[in-house]
Amino acid sequence: MIRLDSSDPTFAEDFARLLTVKREISEDVDETVRGIIAGVVKGGDTALVDYTRQFDRLGEGFTASALRVTEDEIAAALQACPPEALEALRFAAARIEAFHAGQVPGDRMETDALGVTSGWRWTALESVGLYVPGGTASYPSSVLMNAIPARVAGVPRIVMVVPMPDGQSNPLVLAAAHLSGVHEVYRVGGAQAVAALAYGTETIAPVAKVVGPGNAYVAAAKRRVFGQVGIDMIAGPSEVLILADGHANPDWIAADLLAQAEHDVAAQSILITDSAELAEAVEAAVERALTTLPRQEIARASWRDYGAIVRVRHFDEAVPLVDRLAPEHLEIETQDAEALSKKIRNAGAIFLGSHTPEAIGDYVGGPNHVLPTARSARFSSGLGVLDFMKRTTILACTPESLRALGPAAITLGRSEGLEGHARSVAIRLNL
Amino acid sequence: MIRLDSSDPTFAEDFARLLTVKREISEDVDETVRGIIAGVVKGGDTALVDYTRQFDRLGEGFTASALRVTEDEIAAALQACPPEALEALRFAAARIEAFHAGQVPGDRMETDALGVTSGWRWTALESVGLYVPGGTASYPSSVLMNAIPARVAGVPRIVMVVPMPDGQSNPLVLAAAHLSGVHEVYRVGGAQAVAALAYGTETIAPVAKVVGPGNAYVAAAKRRVFGQVGIDMIAGPSEVLILADGHANPDWIAADLLAQAEHDVAAQSILITDSAELAEAVEAAVERALTTLPRQEIARASWRDYGAIVRVRHFDEAVPLVDRLAPEHLEIETQDAEALSKKIRNAGAIFLGSHTPEAIGDYVGGPNHVLPTARSARFSSGLGVLDFMKRTTILACTPESLRALGPAAITLGRSEGLEGHARSVAIRLNL
Repeated sequence: MIRLDSSDPTFAEDFARLLTVKREISEDVDETVRGIIAGVVKGGDTALVDYTRQFDRLGEGFTASALRVTEDEIAAALQACPPEALEALRFAAARIEAFHAGQVPGDRMETDALGVTSGWRWTALESVGLYVPGGTASYPSSVLMNAIPARVAGVPRIVMVVPMPDGQSNPLVLAAAHLSGVHEVYRVGGAQAVAALAYGTETIAPVAKVVGPGNAYVAAAKRRVFGQVGIDMIAGPSEVLILADGHANPDWIAADLLAQAEHDVAAQSILITDSAELAEAVEAAVERALTTLPRQEIARASWRDYGAIVRVRHFDEAVPLVDRLAPEHLEIETQDAEALSKKIRNAGAIFLGSHTPEAIGDYVGGPNHVLPTARSARFSSGLGVLDFMKRTTILACTPESLRALGPAAITLGRSEGLEGHARSVAIRLNL
Repeated sequence: MIRLDSSDPTFAEDFARLLTVKREISEDVDETVRGIIAGVVKGGDTALVDYTRQFDRLGEGFTASALRVTEDEIAAALQACPPEALEALRFAAARIEAFHAGQVPGDRMETDALGVTSGWRWTALESVGLYVPGGTASYPSSVLMNAIPARVAGVPRIVMVVPMPDGQSNPLVLAAAHLSGVHEVYRVGGAQAVAALAYGTETIAPVAKVVGPGNAYVAAAKRRVFGQVGIDMIAGPSEVLILADGHANPDWIAADLLAQAEHDVAAQSILITDSAELAEAVEAAVERALTTLPRQEIARASWRDYGAIVRVRHFDEAVPLVDRLAPEHLEIETQDAEALSKKIRNAGAIFLGSHTPEAIGDYVGGPNHVLPTARSARFSSGLGVLDFMKRTTILACTPESLRALGPAAITLGRSEGLEGHARSVAIRLNL
């Protein structure tokens, strides 16, 4: 764990080093992925089934007719879920839906003083593919967070792919798909599933955009199919930054740091505080809490390798540090949390006050938990309804308004050496 | 030029072939670009100057101190512009600014029935780099279209890079930079300029996002730096699709098809019509107009290799064809243009009626001319203010509202095997 102090003479360099710590191991899987995508493009269902048999250890009995998860299987999954968990999923889904409903953008059409009518219209994507990882990283909450904004946007076809290695599936994942309005579910994963979504096979019609987290193969496949389809961000390891003053409860802060650290050995938890006492108390509290945490091995490695406690003299010093870190999650547990939050430019999501642990936002707060990682909050936003819509601009001139605009367009066309552009305007004005 | 007819028995296959025609020659420059980026990351200004001397044919006299274009040079460029062109640029800038001002998104904060406060805040990116090509593809109108939305978004630092091969610059490009509020201009281009924007050098501070069109080297560099910074779309060759009925003027339609074709031999112009007479008349009009067009060699190659005239029995047949083509520009010159436009899902920009040639939108209409190409209007939008802003979601619970949400979060955390998540909530509720 790294301890920094803004009053140290080497602080600037120390902090710069913290910023550039590389947490992701970039496996070089690009050649393998290229081959898998080419295989699915060429072989369709046959290739998709072959890869799935191989990577998910399914036998010869697995054929193209088993690719799609049936309505009966989904109904059975709903039955198999613990009722309490299903109820919690429903509660979360309703809150996520309500929050995202406020993000649906408005259309606009206006006619200006010259008589030119212009504006735009938002439309939903025609189809979307949602990748859901298998195994231990198969989170029903992520299904809700990806699918519900697509439903709110009005996407008429939402497709989900989820690998079922050794034939094992997570009933809560299928239940979440059902609750959030997914239209089709296929039991495939990896680069082969991304290829099927992007290019289509006999069984899986292609989609316009692929979203959702995945391992190195999935990430490489998304990069490769970008252009053929849209993709969302490439997610990196998760991270939290907590600003807390001397009034904060060290056990609560420690719990939040560890909730992040338990995700992944590459996760990162950072505390910035103006209180030496809090810094010390949190450090001790983390050690205490670790001893009873089920995922303590993961959390301990993350905290040891990437955790940090930064002492500042005043929170005004913290603001530029936050903006440079551009954290995925920012908790502010200070007396003036709201005022401080307004000074921050770069953060994926902000959690205000000591009664808003980040985990609330992972599940039931309402805002999306798919957020920019690895400092990309400097230039991108969390997932939302806009990611499932696109804007078409509209322009309409009357003969009179074309006469008002035309001369400038002709001048600019000619000044750019594009006489054909100029003529397409001039011909309508008899110029 | 391809002629298709929806009543032909082979139409489905013919149209599918039209969709998959590959117009872009993908040069394999990735290894070269990788080397250039690594060079700039390691060597900073020294490497940037070396590459610029080499690629832009500048002598030993070109040093780091000459990288930045001075205020005096920009003032001199303004003096050197033809007054009519400068006036047209000012007119265009004002219209583009007015249109984009309507795109600034609103913030939101609401407290729900449970007492949970949530919402979001939009903030401008802290800095943006705008790539402007040199030579013949150096369009002042593109400077306006890229920089003005950034200014409207409130980006406090807008940087422009433009190569000046053999020391030659385009005064209108510098004037456009001045008019649209660019803060810094550097005379560099190619992959080395993209690397400098993304990673910074001694002279050029790094930016958060790189936008703007460029050649194969620039496109490859943008793909490579994505993640380190944000990027806009990778632009392909331009395209227009025109829907026109028997009332349309064939000479006007021909002029619009050629305005697109003159851009690039890889540009594509397509007409869909329900009138055999119009189809024939447009084909003849294109041939006539070509003979006097300055860029007829380019336009003729584009029309010959990628142009198409598609006959349909009724425009209802055209709607799914349009959505599959997902054109960058869609002109609708039919009697019921507006009603027809509302049936279209996928198009970058729509130009309504016979007095709205696409070239008006290139310059002075108001909407952005940076639009999704190569069928990417299925999943993406033209450039706008939102591309220069990002959204931070905000969540705040009171002790009471945490008590209302907590149990569901604890249940979901445990069901996902994330006990640390559950505990960070439970500890605050004494559960």
